[in-house]
Amino acid sequence: MRQVKALLFDTFGTVVDWRSGVARESAPFLAKHGVAMDPVAFAVAWRKRYQPAMEAVRTGQRPFERLDVLHRENLEATLRDAGADPAAIPEADLAAWNRAWHRLDPWPDGIAGLARLKTRFIIAPLSNGNIALLLNMAKRAGIPWDTVLGSEVAQAFKPTPQAYLRTAEVLGLEPAECMMVAAHNRDLAAARRCGLMTGFVARPTEHGPGQTTDLAAEQDWEVVATDFMDMADKLGCPA
Amino acid sequence: MRQVKALLFDTFGTVVDWRSGVARESAPFLAKHGVAMDPVAFAVAWRKRYQPAMEAVRTGQRPFERLDVLHRENLEATLRDAGADPAAIPEADLAAWNRAWHRLDPWPDGIAGLARLKTRFIIAPLSNGNIALLLNMAKRAGIPWDTVLGSEVAQAFKPTPQAYLRTAEVLGLEPAECMMVAAHNRDLAAARRCGLMTGFVARPTEHGPGQTTDLAAEQDWEVVATDFMDMADKLGCPA
Repeated sequence: MRQVKALLFDTFGTVVDWRSGVARESAPFLAKHGVAMDPVAFAVAWRKRYQPAMEAVRTGQRPFERLDVLHRENLEATLRDAGADPAAIPEADLAAWNRAWHRLDPWPDGIAGLARLKTRFIIAPLSNGNIALLLNMAKRAGIPWDTVLGSEVAQAFKPTPQAYLRTAEVLGLEPAECMMVAAHNRDLAAARRCGLMTGFVARPTEHGPGQTTDLAAEQDWEVVATDFMDMADKLGCPA
Repeated sequence: MRQVKALLFDTFGTVVDWRSGVARESAPFLAKHGVAMDPVAFAVAWRKRYQPAMEAVRTGQRPFERLDVLHRENLEATLRDAGADPAAIPEADLAAWNRAWHRLDPWPDGIAGLARLKTRFIIAPLSNGNIALLLNMAKRAGIPWDTVLGSEVAQAFKPTPQAYLRTAEVLGLEPAECMMVAAHNRDLAAARRCGLMTGFVARPTEHGPGQTTDLAAEQDWEVVATDFMDMADKLGCPA
């Protein structure tokens, strides 16, 4: 672990609480356009289309596309599933609604923990989000990234190896000089296969009170922490 | 100007003093390897190969290459011009010497001015430097960028239009929502042709005490400032 120079963070779920944020941001649009669906259920349904949309890129069925574009397609599909016609909603509203993902709040330990980790490491997202999405999110919420590298830099979505390897490469670092930090065991397993160090942080309510997955580390990750403050303690970052 | 959301900064010369920094970083290597050349003269000679190296990429004679790679080629050529044999210098020393460009200091108003500008705008470099170079520079010197987008994101060197246009695009902004900030009239002219707003800041000693170029604004740039603090005043950023 001594050689680690950069901590690379999964973002949705690990840094920010997408479920409550997308629900909060969706509520006024659902009300305005008469879509009879609970905002949390809408957020979950929207997110459910996230992995399948990226899978089409990962398997080569479609070329790489920014997540803002995939989110927009998924928003329209989710609206149709809810019995609403997206064509009846003004374009400006759909565009603003789609930027719900730019307006998510970090978990309570997020900002303070990252600020501590930043004193000893380069900190950056390694997310499937695109640059504009992650940058607007950081600017609004005060997330103190050293740089924001969206997935268009690597032109690949996790867990495709290029997402990890190209990110290390543009940072001028060996994979083992980077530590992937995530609340998702699958993400860490893919990073480890690429030679990165791994840090798990539990986010037991990412999927709500009844969450059953990713409640604990499933491999011997180099660091296992309860939150970012605990991770800062374990990595020797001053309080 | 009211629509401007991001300030994009030329870096070498505008944010950091490359001439004195590269001289300072080169001095111990020149001494260690017995190269009889004044460090400032060496820095100037090294930098003199910067534009020709990028021009080969701009004109399509060679594919896009990161500036760290071009700097290394130019370092070896500059050593040969000085009568030294780069092959006689250990690889570790050449690699460390090449990273002189990662260890440059901002002008005295740089950090404080950028911190003020950051309160109202996204701030990021729009430099021909690569991500690792600009990120290491920022981390060492405390430059508070919101994100570091190196030229490998746009895959083009300024003043090629794509360098400006692709940067605006990954930020999710229209060109007119971005302001290019530079101490070089040529850079601003190219940015203006692409539809960006423009801000000039004078750096009258970038090339030393006898500088004759870029001492003043040569067009009616939207903002003309004496330094970043003056620019923050003119853009209404709180002190």
